[in-house]
Amino acid sequence: MTCAVLCIGTELTRGELVDTNGPWLAAALTDLGFEVLEKATVDDDRARIISAVRRLAGVARVIVCTGGLGPTTDDLTSEAVAEALGVPTERDEPSLDHIRRRLEKLGRTVSPTNAKQADFPRGAEILPNPIGTAPGFQVGIGGALLFFMPGVPREMMRMFEEQIVPRIRPLAPSESFQIRLRTFGLPESVVGERLGGVEAAFPGVTIGYRAHFPEIEVKVLARVKSEDGDGEGSKAPKTDDAARALCERATTEVRSRLADVIYGEGHDTFAGVVGRALRARGFTLAIAESCTGGLVGHMVTREPGASDFLLVDAVTYANSAKTRLLGVGEDVLRGHGAVSAEVAAAMAEGVRRVSDADIALSLTGVAGPSGGTAEKPVGTVYLAVASAKGTLVKHRVFPGERLQIQTLASYLGLSLVREACG
Amino acid sequence: MTCAVLCIGTELTRGELVDTNGPWLAAALTDLGFEVLEKATVDDDRARIISAVRRLAGVARVIVCTGGLGPTTDDLTSEAVAEALGVPTERDEPSLDHIRRRLEKLGRTVSPTNAKQADFPRGAEILPNPIGTAPGFQVGIGGALLFFMPGVPREMMRMFEEQIVPRIRPLAPSESFQIRLRTFGLPESVVGERLGGVEAAFPGVTIGYRAHFPEIEVKVLARVKSEDGDGEGSKAPKTDDAARALCERATTEVRSRLADVIYGEGHDTFAGVVGRALRARGFTLAIAESCTGGLVGHMVTREPGASDFLLVDAVTYANSAKTRLLGVGEDVLRGHGAVSAEVAAAMAEGVRRVSDADIALSLTGVAGPSGGTAEKPVGTVYLAVASAKGTLVKHRVFPGERLQIQTLASYLGLSLVREACG
Repeated sequence: MTCAVLCIGTELTRGELVDTNGPWLAAALTDLGFEVLEKATVDDDRARIISAVRRLAGVARVIVCTGGLGPTTDDLTSEAVAEALGVPTERDEPSLDHIRRRLEKLGRTVSPTNAKQADFPRGAEILPNPIGTAPGFQVGIGGALLFFMPGVPREMMRMFEEQIVPRIRPLAPSESFQIRLRTFGLPESVVGERLGGVEAAFPGVTIGYRAHFPEIEVKVLARVKSEDGDGEGSKAPKTDDAARALCERATTEVRSRLADVIYGEGHDTFAGVVGRALRARGFTLAIAESCTGGLVGHMVTREPGASDFLLVDAVTYANSAKTRLLGVGEDVLRGHGAVSAEVAAAMAEGVRRVSDADIALSLTGVAGPSGGTAEKPVGTVYLAVASAKGTLVKHRVFPGERLQIQTLASYLGLSLVREACG
Repeated sequence: MTCAVLCIGTELTRGELVDTNGPWLAAALTDLGFEVLEKATVDDDRARIISAVRRLAGVARVIVCTGGLGPTTDDLTSEAVAEALGVPTERDEPSLDHIRRRLEKLGRTVSPTNAKQADFPRGAEILPNPIGTAPGFQVGIGGALLFFMPGVPREMMRMFEEQIVPRIRPLAPSESFQIRLRTFGLPESVVGERLGGVEAAFPGVTIGYRAHFPEIEVKVLARVKSEDGDGEGSKAPKTDDAARALCERATTEVRSRLADVIYGEGHDTFAGVVGRALRARGFTLAIAESCTGGLVGHMVTREPGASDFLLVDAVTYANSAKTRLLGVGEDVLRGHGAVSAEVAAAMAEGVRRVSDADIALSLTGVAGPSGGTAEKPVGTVYLAVASAKGTLVKHRVFPGERLQIQTLASYLGLSLVREACG
């Protein structure tokens, strides 16, 4: 049972908008157990929409389409699909009522262009849009089922999940189960090498990678063929269990190969995991940043609940601030330079003293692009963690540009905090 | 002269990777003056690659393709294109030498799978890859020119600009010129409404929008038809000048309609513009954050050269830190609460005092999701700017979720700093 995705819109073919609907739908269909053959994007051109719809209906059984259902004259999807089917469009009165009620709520009345959004190819099944103006619709061409939704991502996602998934799930040739693991510390190529052979060892399992610098998310997807053959009728719950069991077996293997770099799964974030470790021990945290300029604090505080443990983050960018706020000795700064093990230690100890925190982290370095020297090149960072156990200092030279250096240093700093909780 | 973009890779049709090459190429081709009819994405399947290549060669004159040139058995682009052309693949010795030299630098030798990257359809013109292993190639099918590049974005962008642009620019049916304006303060729909009629008033001009929350980038693109007809031969410089002049006239109109929200153009960033304003006056800056948790500091310091003006950013998350580091009175905190005009003022004045900065900004609020009250709901933020002129306090209730509230508050804070420089 094969699928295709069609995105319609000149803003997409001109690259004015980065298409997020296409990848989202491709992933959702894959996760449901379908094979996605093609994603196509065409501009708002009647002939090209007709030709894409007809062509895809000839190669795939389920085609999910977004875009071109808006009120403007550019929005041609409904008319083009009617033409592809050889039928006229017809106004759907319940949809027009829905559009009228939504616009009235916004203090507006229905114009002829809005009314156009209630016109659908004759015979189409309407797919209501609970959170937007434009309804969607479903039609059949030959043996293919085609679904059309508006291009607004929120509306599209809601309609897909509420209306399309129940209609197509029984058609999926396999049942699937997935686990997403979050890693930090290795480049994607090395993560891939470490997992070499896992797919072969667990037939039905696919490993996917998604990089969000500096993290690599590893998706373990298990598919098990539906027991009732080609997907007609409802699935036996056994298929479901088998997919989950296969996924869990493969994930155990993946975990053992990446044990040193997996920090969490699903929607975990690195700072969130570090926060959990602090909370579990009842520890408070203080931070003193220099080259990272507030990034560590931002990572920690973009997670809800940071006030449970974070007392202060002193971004002491100027030397005078290091002295005045943290009590770093002027002689230490003069003698070793602001980027030094001694200053990192004094910053961590200083911020711990002024805040009474259990654990204090400091970072000082050269984020670049200027400020590097032969001895301390761009990328040099000293990190220190001070706690009741004493002060630990680390030295690294990170590769990359300014923001990459800041990000890598911040991640390493948070790792050190997590270790200090251990 | 029409174009199409073809992206090849199962990781794309499965939605495991969000395609950034497709939108980038679509925008680059549009900017060069081409009309992009379609972006297609197919999986690493020989038959589907062949069918896509043949089909697109029938509808467009220039087809730019990425992906499937890697060393693994999944990478089938070269073989599939050869089959589409009805020719065998042949090994290109200079390419093999290039691959060997690159791998040797990495301490590796050429395996048979690597050697495969030097196999191209007979008669193809090789496109060298200066920064990666896999070269690209160019072939003709009927009247269409097809270009194939690896999918690694860095390599693809470099090869496109160095090798494909010079080959296709003479074919572009028009000359184009663009100006990108950066705005902050209005939603995309309102920016669009304000610019209603500009495209009609300046024929040949297209306005594009790209949202990076909370900013909207407005692209003014002017196209002027090449004087030498259908794009054969080189352009008269006059066409170039005419496109620039048209773009500048339209941009003047756009600027007048968005004067209150445009903060810069091209690669400007909001924090960078605020930094320029501080530098121009020779002012130093101190920040005291609470609900924004370091985000203002991060925005300021991700720009190179922040050390010219930034002295300190005290993220005083706990009340005790507000008192100890900034001298905010415990009675003020008790009497008005940490989220109050009084505490915002005391934080700004406190951080200015401890740092001797010319301008001090403070932010305190409720970023949520918890912590809101009827009187001070989630989104409530007090901001203060202290300078030699005195202390100014602002109060806002921002919509959205935690990170959106933090982001909007940080932008407003930086706006206030810019105003204080004025």
